[in-house]
Amino acid sequence: MSEVTRPTLSDALTERMLELIRTGGHRPGDRLPSTRVLSERFAVTTPTLREALRRLEATGAIEMRHGSGIYVGADIERLVLPNPNMREMHAAQLLELLGARIVIEPPLAAMAAERANGAELAALEQVLDAAARHLDGKDAELHDTNMTFHRATARLAGNSVLHEVVDSLLTVHGPEQREILQIFDDRRRDHDEHLSILEAIVARDAAAAEERMRAHLVDVKTVIEQRLHHPPK
Amino acid sequence: MSEVTRPTLSDALTERMLELIRTGGHRPGDRLPSTRVLSERFAVTTPTLREALRRLEATGAIEMRHGSGIYVGADIERLVLPNPNMREMHAAQLLELLGARIVIEPPLAAMAAERANGAELAALEQVLDAAARHLDGKDAELHDTNMTFHRATARLAGNSVLHEVVDSLLTVHGPEQREILQIFDDRRRDHDEHLSILEAIVARDAAAAEERMRAHLVDVKTVIEQRLHHPPK
Repeated sequence: MSEVTRPTLSDALTERMLELIRTGGHRPGDRLPSTRVLSERFAVTTPTLREALRRLEATGAIEMRHGSGIYVGADIERLVLPNPNMREMHAAQLLELLGARIVIEPPLAAMAAERANGAELAALEQVLDAAARHLDGKDAELHDTNMTFHRATARLAGNSVLHEVVDSLLTVHGPEQREILQIFDDRRRDHDEHLSILEAIVARDAAAAEERMRAHLVDVKTVIEQRLHHPPK
Repeated sequence: MSEVTRPTLSDALTERMLELIRTGGHRPGDRLPSTRVLSERFAVTTPTLREALRRLEATGAIEMRHGSGIYVGADIERLVLPNPNMREMHAAQLLELLGARIVIEPPLAAMAAERANGAELAALEQVLDAAARHLDGKDAELHDTNMTFHRATARLAGNSVLHEVVDSLLTVHGPEQREILQIFDDRRRDHDEHLSILEAIVARDAAAAEERMRAHLVDVKTVIEQRLHHPPK
């Protein structure tokens, strides 16, 4: 038996699963046939089927809920994904990531200011209201709410691919991002900067929204760089 | 037996494989132990091991070469990946993708103009020399060379995450992107626009590089939109 076997069968099964989802008109959240039914339909053994399922699960195309079944995954229609295999993020990588966000997010804040409607703006305000309530709370909750603000702003820019890109950048190795970002540590300043970005978006001032988002992200990056070179004693 | 079994074991194996790669100091291209050795080391059956391997393969963390072995994949250190499960790209999605490129790529052209060194600029010139040779050749070759120009420009911007983002956007469902982009169809104009972007980068004129990249991508998007609404007879 060769070192690596059945590559073609597993590839073919993955294709057939994707075809089944597509031609069946299944949408994210829809339930798919059971592994028993699938292995009968495709005339393969359960272990072989499972290889294909795990592959699709790893990339968010399907979701396997223990004891419940197989569902179409929320990520199946995305163009861009966060790498699910990242296990360590060093400060240097986070600085590179912030460098990317400094390029991408400011124009999205401008686009959000130009096109968001009243209901969307109200929802964005609610995110920062929630952040305000977490200001004296746990790191994780405040961080998650703040990341929701960045994701929501990106979504209001109105381009799904740009939203996926920002979501991917904020999702990849989230816990370690939070840990490093905590050295930024000035919760109040962070929150005030978010409020001033929101204010510009609500005022439909695209130039100010762009400039404030850029200044905010540059602030975060600068503080992390300084702490790395001169760690607090 | 429940509908979906062994989720924990497969998850745990994936973690152990990633840990083996990390603690072993393995880099992309390095050969890993055989499936036989791995299933002994982890004390699991081959089908179970294979689930974890397929999952890692689907996301580029490892590469399984038929008859040769298992290698660390080139994508293991990326933050962002193209979705490997995209099978159909409609024109509407490509327009959305071009909308994202219009936001992301122009500032990267500006950054490239500011920081590329002589050797990097020479390499970029060579890409367009190759494109010129393909101008009367096959669609696929010309398209690939043109995409290399966009990737190389993004890399010269000097931020690895931004390069990954652009690479992901150009990679996802590449053949179908090419097919739709062929309706743009004016090879000479496309090439001339690339040349004028290169010229600005070589002249270290960041503002011109940014503006020309934007105009070029807007051109492509506009032509595709027009053809969609008024298909040629």
